[in-house]
Amino acid sequence: MKRPAFSTGESMKLHWSPRSPFVRKVMVAAHELGLAEKIECVRSVAAMSKPNAAIMLDNPLSKIPALVLGDGTVLVDSAVIVEYLDSLAGGGQLIAPAGRQRWLVLSRQALADGLLDLLVLWRNERDKPAGRQTHEWLDAFAVKAAATLDRLEAEAAALESEPFGIGHIAVGCALSYLDFRFADLAWREGRPRLAAWQATFAARPSARATEIVDG
Amino acid sequence: MKRPAFSTGESMKLHWSPRSPFVRKVMVAAHELGLAEKIECVRSVAAMSKPNAAIMLDNPLSKIPALVLGDGTVLVDSAVIVEYLDSLAGGGQLIAPAGRQRWLVLSRQALADGLLDLLVLWRNERDKPAGRQTHEWLDAFAVKAAATLDRLEAEAAALESEPFGIGHIAVGCALSYLDFRFADLAWREGRPRLAAWQATFAARPSARATEIVDG
Repeated sequence: MKRPAFSTGESMKLHWSPRSPFVRKVMVAAHELGLAEKIECVRSVAAMSKPNAAIMLDNPLSKIPALVLGDGTVLVDSAVIVEYLDSLAGGGQLIAPAGRQRWLVLSRQALADGLLDLLVLWRNERDKPAGRQTHEWLDAFAVKAAATLDRLEAEAAALESEPFGIGHIAVGCALSYLDFRFADLAWREGRPRLAAWQATFAARPSARATEIVDG
Repeated sequence: MKRPAFSTGESMKLHWSPRSPFVRKVMVAAHELGLAEKIECVRSVAAMSKPNAAIMLDNPLSKIPALVLGDGTVLVDSAVIVEYLDSLAGGGQLIAPAGRQRWLVLSRQALADGLLDLLVLWRNERDKPAGRQTHEWLDAFAVKAAATLDRLEAEAAALESEPFGIGHIAVGCALSYLDFRFADLAWREGRPRLAAWQATFAARPSARATEIVDG
């Protein structure tokens, strides 16, 4: 993910990394809302084993994304930050303001975020020396990830027909992360409709501007 | 946490456990909103290493809480469920509907939920055989938890003065979980104002009705 140009003035500061899928959710939303240029992205490395003092000044959990507003207020968690950005853009742009559609979309975002949480933990476990791995966890990660992808395949028709929003962004970022870190899972196999939908997500300018890259 | 009485009719089904702090968040909110009797609590064991088929029918991530509405719609994630319950109660009860206070409260909830996520991972790691533990993780968990508790101590004045809401519930449930699983941390030491605030939380009827118990 390339760092957007810094724009002075009323900019917000985002603790950012080119490889964090949760940061990417925020940046896809910012591009969709026309706010990307208002966000100053500060490279912040958040590793599970290395607390980062610079991040912790703003977010003591040492997690990204964390958004620092002009008055110093810090917002943590990608879902909170996206809803804040949506409100800056007038509200109701990426999240329905009320009613059944709101709950469906927020729950879909939570499902995709939960898949991402699982994948991050899975990767941490997978990359350990074999003697330190917990095999029941690795097995459980695989079962839960497959079931979640099957659920998303079943919801692909909804992804196709519903207004583009935060549910789509979260699912798209989770699937892209699978391609980036779990290519061996071949998640598209047996899930043709989800694969076709993901191609439409990946083609959006907001997704192309935020692609996760190595380096 | 005792299971509330089952009320027939328009009840919702909650995948529930007496020891889950995230389930407790939902139930504290339900009690505060006068909705606890509308929720049928179904005992659902969610362990990191054992996918639970009954939960996965509703939430393929095998996580709780998950709320099943009368029409079969499933809402996952405690933050989403609490906002849904708040809307059932008219909206704006536990979460300000808009503006600066909304973002502050949602971000505080996310900070407390992030602390809980960390504590759950910490406990999983701590309880492993010594040879399989990752010591850098254990050290990092301790540093980040202490910093987050220090931040909450600094925010205790805001907890005291702001209208009771989801931020309070999330912080209260995280602190109670520390007492339940990390008594050795002695989190109150050096954090007198947070400790005093937590006592007021624990005394609320909604907190007393949902205390986490062993067994």
